[in-house]
Amino acid sequence: MASVGPVTAQRLHFSEPLALRSGAVLADYTLVYETYGTLNAARSNAVLVCHALNASHHVAGLDAEGARGWWDNLVGPGKPLDTERFFVIGVNNPGSCFGSTGPMHPNPATGRAWGADFPVQTVEDWVDAQARLLTRLGIERLAAVIGGSLGGMQALAWTLRHPARVRHCIAIASAPNLSAQNIAFNEVARRAIVTDPDFHGGHFYDHGVLPQRGLRVARMIGHITYLAEDAMDSKFGRELKHAALAYSTQAVEFQIESYLRHQGDKFSRYFDANTYLLITRALDYFDPAADHGGDLARAFAHDPATREVGFLVVSFTTDWRFSPARSREIVKALVDNRAAVSYAEIDAPHGHDAFLLDDPRYHGVLRARFERIAAETAVAERRAAPKPAPIPSGDRPPYPVAEGPQ
Amino acid sequence: MASVGPVTAQRLHFSEPLALRSGAVLADYTLVYETYGTLNAARSNAVLVCHALNASHHVAGLDAEGARGWWDNLVGPGKPLDTERFFVIGVNNPGSCFGSTGPMHPNPATGRAWGADFPVQTVEDWVDAQARLLTRLGIERLAAVIGGSLGGMQALAWTLRHPARVRHCIAIASAPNLSAQNIAFNEVARRAIVTDPDFHGGHFYDHGVLPQRGLRVARMIGHITYLAEDAMDSKFGRELKHAALAYSTQAVEFQIESYLRHQGDKFSRYFDANTYLLITRALDYFDPAADHGGDLARAFAHDPATREVGFLVVSFTTDWRFSPARSREIVKALVDNRAAVSYAEIDAPHGHDAFLLDDPRYHGVLRARFERIAAETAVAERRAAPKPAPIPSGDRPPYPVAEGPQ
Repeated sequence: MASVGPVTAQRLHFSEPLALRSGAVLADYTLVYETYGTLNAARSNAVLVCHALNASHHVAGLDAEGARGWWDNLVGPGKPLDTERFFVIGVNNPGSCFGSTGPMHPNPATGRAWGADFPVQTVEDWVDAQARLLTRLGIERLAAVIGGSLGGMQALAWTLRHPARVRHCIAIASAPNLSAQNIAFNEVARRAIVTDPDFHGGHFYDHGVLPQRGLRVARMIGHITYLAEDAMDSKFGRELKHAALAYSTQAVEFQIESYLRHQGDKFSRYFDANTYLLITRALDYFDPAADHGGDLARAFAHDPATREVGFLVVSFTTDWRFSPARSREIVKALVDNRAAVSYAEIDAPHGHDAFLLDDPRYHGVLRARFERIAAETAVAERRAAPKPAPIPSGDRPPYPVAEGPQ
Repeated sequence: MASVGPVTAQRLHFSEPLALRSGAVLADYTLVYETYGTLNAARSNAVLVCHALNASHHVAGLDAEGARGWWDNLVGPGKPLDTERFFVIGVNNPGSCFGSTGPMHPNPATGRAWGADFPVQTVEDWVDAQARLLTRLGIERLAAVIGGSLGGMQALAWTLRHPARVRHCIAIASAPNLSAQNIAFNEVARRAIVTDPDFHGGHFYDHGVLPQRGLRVARMIGHITYLAEDAMDSKFGRELKHAALAYSTQAVEFQIESYLRHQGDKFSRYFDANTYLLITRALDYFDPAADHGGDLARAFAHDPATREVGFLVVSFTTDWRFSPARSREIVKALVDNRAAVSYAEIDAPHGHDAFLLDDPRYHGVLRARFERIAAETAVAERRAAPKPAPIPSGDRPPYPVAEGPQ
């Protein structure tokens, strides 16, 4: 199947302050996004893709550096999320390090980089920022919002905060909140970063250094939790790096060590330490039931429009980070509300990472769902086909826009 | 039930070089040990307790500082491992940081602390060192060797290296080798330590600093793997540390964070970084099947005396570090050899740490086993009751011996 080809990231500046869940305010900010496919006349075929921890707006196609989007196997012409039918939007969340306003950008109050002072973000804040982007793009209602892991949490939050603006919600490998163990892994990763002497209290930009030691360790921890134990054994087992053991505490003896060190090194070169802290915190804080006495069903019952959303919840049998049991909690709360919910528990060997892979059963479930949504959307388009309003071009971005190869 | 009361650690110096599995040699070394109960006339009631990652020879009773032994709930008068019947020995392994020769002691070749140059230890090396200790104590054959986790690996290694010297082997919460995931967690912990600027290539003793940042992170990672996810949720869940969220990336928000930081801090003050590297490596390297074409059954078949040992293998349902499936691999290999093996899979909520706790079903299984061993031992004593040879007093230790309160 074809790829969407070269894509150019776009930017929109928002000068209306964003009130955050923490009580702080993001006075103004820029969002970077990409789109694939064509918005139909009814503006009814838009699908928003929410990204997880280390991903970005670059969902599909090839960016300016020729890098393939993180969900390119899912999104493209003829693919399960078919860009010949849908107008797909990938947006980078505030606090990230891939272009949208984040801790490495100037804090208007000081003129220096925000660093650790960047306002703490929550899933709900991101969803509100995304909603504003859609408004600016002239999209009142999404055909679907979709995401995996932390992206799935955003998809769920859409149905709680802006339910009238979502027809379908697809939450994959997600959870209604983090378990103590999930928080624990995040906390260890954060401690590794924060206690790296090169972190400088989050203001390492001013010191010309990066807390790479901490980021490496954080990424290695994360990576272990993304992979199923059996898959790790199949892929690496106890295979040695060299012909014989070196009997050394610091040498690379096993292939799994080599793989993890490589993943950690790579990550520490491109990912921002403050962003890592912010995003793991957003994960920790997400807990929609907490505002409703700990009852997730009541959270979904709060706005009657939530019940009008069509839900698809997907989990993977070997995902021990966000296990199927966590997805079933979401399903149960929706069933308790008599919401329209389908649940697919995919027997896949790849653990949490499975949501990024193209397992045929998994992609089959998504393809079927998007075919159904496309059929609905076509109906909607025939019924009401208003002349589209011009899409606003947005304010001028505060810094140069990266130009793609096209 | 009573405790064994105050105990004094003892020391023996060994001047005969210990040939290590790595090919290196430990020219001479001191072992620190404790004993509880009385060796019978036949010298047939000795039970060796092997320690795991962060424990020591101080198994039971109160040491000079008044600290209770790590397995005091199991070992004592009237307890499952009853010191009124058995002569119990706890020994600190070489490379540890609790008194036996280790990386903080002088390297005879340089006069400086060994640091990272301390010879890499394996489970087999430890067992050989323990065997020499028993010889010096005048014990030819153990009534039993027992250990949990890494201690269980030592118990198994006894039956492979010195099977004629073991009547019973009790391996609890153990595994025939580490999985890729187990190695991965060890490797992340090691990277955290080794990349701490205060590690100084393992020679931090010379710099008057300790790599506490790395040790904290290492311990936090380890601790997560010792606890069952459900038990963590029961104990901590998403409980907050303070009345309201601070919305901060670095503050302590959740109780689980507070608990983990506390565990990390405590550990980083008493545990040696080089020892941590050595002990995790010993875990990584343990793989008795590797010398027998990867076939654990062949490893147990190598010496016919192994088949004469009575095995008890115990696992815990919620242990995801060394899961019941890993213990069943051991059992299967023993059954393939028609060895006498009992297997208990204890339904306990506490994860890997369960082996240290006094779950009644677990302790019931151990009590029954030791009653059987005691009965056998009594028979052995009636059959052959030689006059005991005097226990050698050992060479003078190379540094002052800590005196207990008694």
